[in-house]
Amino acid sequence: MEITRKLAHFLVTHKAADLPDPVRHEATRSLLNWVACAIGASKHETVKRALAALYDLSGPRDATILGRTERVDIFQAALLNGATSHTFDFDDTHMKTVIHPSGPVASAILALAERQPVSGRDFLHAFILGVETECRIGNSVFPNHYDTGWHITATAGVFGAAAAAGRLLKLSEQQMVWALGTAATQACGIRETFGTMAKPLHPGIAARNGLLAALLAKKNVTSAEQGIEGRRGFAAILSTKFDPKEITEGLGKTWEISTNTYKPYACGIVIHPAIDGCIQLRNEHHLVAEDIERIDLKVHPLVLELTGRKTPQAGLEGKFSIYHSCAAAIILGEGGEAAYSDAIVRNPRVIALRDRVNAAVEQGIHEDQVRITMYLKDGRTLEKYIEHAIGSVTRPMSDADLEAKFRLLAKGILPAVQTDKLIALCWNVGKLKSAAEIARASVPVRAKVKAKKK
Amino acid sequence: MEITRKLAHFLVTHKAADLPDPVRHEATRSLLNWVACAIGASKHETVKRALAALYDLSGPRDATILGRTERVDIFQAALLNGATSHTFDFDDTHMKTVIHPSGPVASAILALAERQPVSGRDFLHAFILGVETECRIGNSVFPNHYDTGWHITATAGVFGAAAAAGRLLKLSEQQMVWALGTAATQACGIRETFGTMAKPLHPGIAARNGLLAALLAKKNVTSAEQGIEGRRGFAAILSTKFDPKEITEGLGKTWEISTNTYKPYACGIVIHPAIDGCIQLRNEHHLVAEDIERIDLKVHPLVLELTGRKTPQAGLEGKFSIYHSCAAAIILGEGGEAAYSDAIVRNPRVIALRDRVNAAVEQGIHEDQVRITMYLKDGRTLEKYIEHAIGSVTRPMSDADLEAKFRLLAKGILPAVQTDKLIALCWNVGKLKSAAEIARASVPVRAKVKAKKK
Repeated sequence: MEITRKLAHFLVTHKAADLPDPVRHEATRSLLNWVACAIGASKHETVKRALAALYDLSGPRDATILGRTERVDIFQAALLNGATSHTFDFDDTHMKTVIHPSGPVASAILALAERQPVSGRDFLHAFILGVETECRIGNSVFPNHYDTGWHITATAGVFGAAAAAGRLLKLSEQQMVWALGTAATQACGIRETFGTMAKPLHPGIAARNGLLAALLAKKNVTSAEQGIEGRRGFAAILSTKFDPKEITEGLGKTWEISTNTYKPYACGIVIHPAIDGCIQLRNEHHLVAEDIERIDLKVHPLVLELTGRKTPQAGLEGKFSIYHSCAAAIILGEGGEAAYSDAIVRNPRVIALRDRVNAAVEQGIHEDQVRITMYLKDGRTLEKYIEHAIGSVTRPMSDADLEAKFRLLAKGILPAVQTDKLIALCWNVGKLKSAAEIARASVPVRAKVKAKKK
Repeated sequence: MEITRKLAHFLVTHKAADLPDPVRHEATRSLLNWVACAIGASKHETVKRALAALYDLSGPRDATILGRTERVDIFQAALLNGATSHTFDFDDTHMKTVIHPSGPVASAILALAERQPVSGRDFLHAFILGVETECRIGNSVFPNHYDTGWHITATAGVFGAAAAAGRLLKLSEQQMVWALGTAATQACGIRETFGTMAKPLHPGIAARNGLLAALLAKKNVTSAEQGIEGRRGFAAILSTKFDPKEITEGLGKTWEISTNTYKPYACGIVIHPAIDGCIQLRNEHHLVAEDIERIDLKVHPLVLELTGRKTPQAGLEGKFSIYHSCAAAIILGEGGEAAYSDAIVRNPRVIALRDRVNAAVEQGIHEDQVRITMYLKDGRTLEKYIEHAIGSVTRPMSDADLEAKFRLLAKGILPAVQTDKLIALCWNVGKLKSAAEIARASVPVRAKVKAKKK
């Protein structure tokens, strides 16, 4: 059972030319969404504090923190971009495993692409291979591994980062085996940190550790031959379930990134159908908060378990309140990060509407479904049944939706003109001479001018 | 059950003045042994390759790789000194958990002491607190955690590194809780890597990750409140056994470092009684290899299981051969790293004697015991029973033994005069104005002169 070696063989021999166009396009969408999330949280307190701890310790300042002007070494860039891209819990989701695939992989290789020349084509290829690696390893141990308490984005992500960076470093098959082994022995990230700043660090830690694994392997630092499947390997130690076929079957034929999804709303995914329905009703009937007498929601039990907070006090808590989320969706017309600021959560109009939202369990309704009944003050009753929320695999966000999300996230960080240019660059990633252009184009222009004046 | 907080409280409030002298002395012995091991392996291929991968990526070159002339940033120094100190498997052992305690802790804080002023007294205190932290956490989950396949030196070590570095960074209690939480979420290291270069990296990875945890906490990057004991915390996820009393009872009253042990021989600890006995017989009777007709050993079953290789072909394999170890001990009069070179393992005189060594199980004999019967060509029969091998808690290596080990390890790396000075500096660590002196005094002097000439 040579799982690690089979995977390594695939990773070093697969040809970019053999990628189907839709796979490339989905990868491009993932990348666009990742850049947007990283820029959106680039002024967040988490990255500010982490940067305060690390900036002076940086090595060669080859790399960009997306959306910021400081330059740092590739390990720090991998760590910090991984962190910002996950800070808002707004990044992509591989639904089968709840892995957020882009963070660990893109953060590692975009940093690397700023230190050595990497074409957009090779970048996108490595990115797809990295996502394939982490999601397949995730599939092989899910759900037991996650249920135990591991943050699978981090623990599987380190393999994705190592694989993608290893591909760009042109590792031999043996070196790739070692890189995956050294990734395995650095797999970490526990769910106890959820709700703290350490949680968004996880994809960054995975990116940094995976990058280290690949760099060490490139210089022939040996490691386990069976890091994934061995008797004392990743799967045996970190999971009670392991299905190696998930890793090795259909390699190069199916692509995990094809099932990637993007959140339209900056909150727990089980609230998405309700927000989706509320926004649809709002827009169809031109509603304002004061038109509404009461909103009744019928939901899956998990929705109340995870997001049943009736009176959230702060922005982060609002993300775990279906009541707040519906109220903010109606008042703002969106479910982006703006709907989860402390100010919005404490806004009297939002609170007043929130307190008129009710939610109850309905047997047979699925997690991504909702039945909304809205009683208006004028006596009308509106109904909306959402079968699949926007952003799900069945009803994916369109390219235009993703662009709109990008613009919302970049607002206040990049000038609109620059945002447009960066979006165009992301769509074009597969044809760029240098993938690093994306990183550099994310640095706020105004600040750039300032820096030059000094 | 506020385990993490209780531990954090202890770590930030304990006073150096309350340390008993024997505890300080044992810590000094541990440090001396750690420096010796790190210097001994400082030219090993593992560190050469790792350095080739990392050197150009270094940040501010504040820190020393013990025994080498290159300077690197504190993260790299933590990683590389942790690695060299474990490369020969010759470092210290906390017998209750098989943790090698010094590597993760000393590697983190010696690096830190080269970047900010740290007195020898504070250094030793932080070192003792770090060892206390990792060994207590180890005690709380041992043996299940280790048996699962975790390399406990790494997984517990990261807490020790975070605690010690956090103490030197003067973290508040809350910050120390966060540092332990961020350590918990970086705990990693699996036994599948044993026998590869990734294994000695483990204490280095723990040191680097722990140092990062402390630095982030210092800038208020928040983390789990119950990183150790929480429902999704370290103990629940990485172990099937958890006894929190091992962490919180008797804090400041008992000291885990008091039970630390040092290997006199550079091989698996179960061979130590046999080597000890052979060297004693050799010296008492002035034996040479050709005097000996046959050696019969009676041992615990585990000895044959772990070290029963009859015809080792390379140095590393010799470490798992009781036959080779006894032959080399008689011919060289020692069991240091020199006894495990490829050349010695292939030496015809050693092979000839090795093939005259027999080992068999004796019921009732313990792992750290051996019964040796030596049949000489002149017809005499010599017997030796070892009840506790040298290096065990019951028969510890003396200070002089540790110095002799240091000299053997430093031979060929440091000039003898420099070695003497460095040993004196280590014994004196608690009184140094700056603990960093130890690191700087380990740089080979000849090379230093060369560097100046350039």
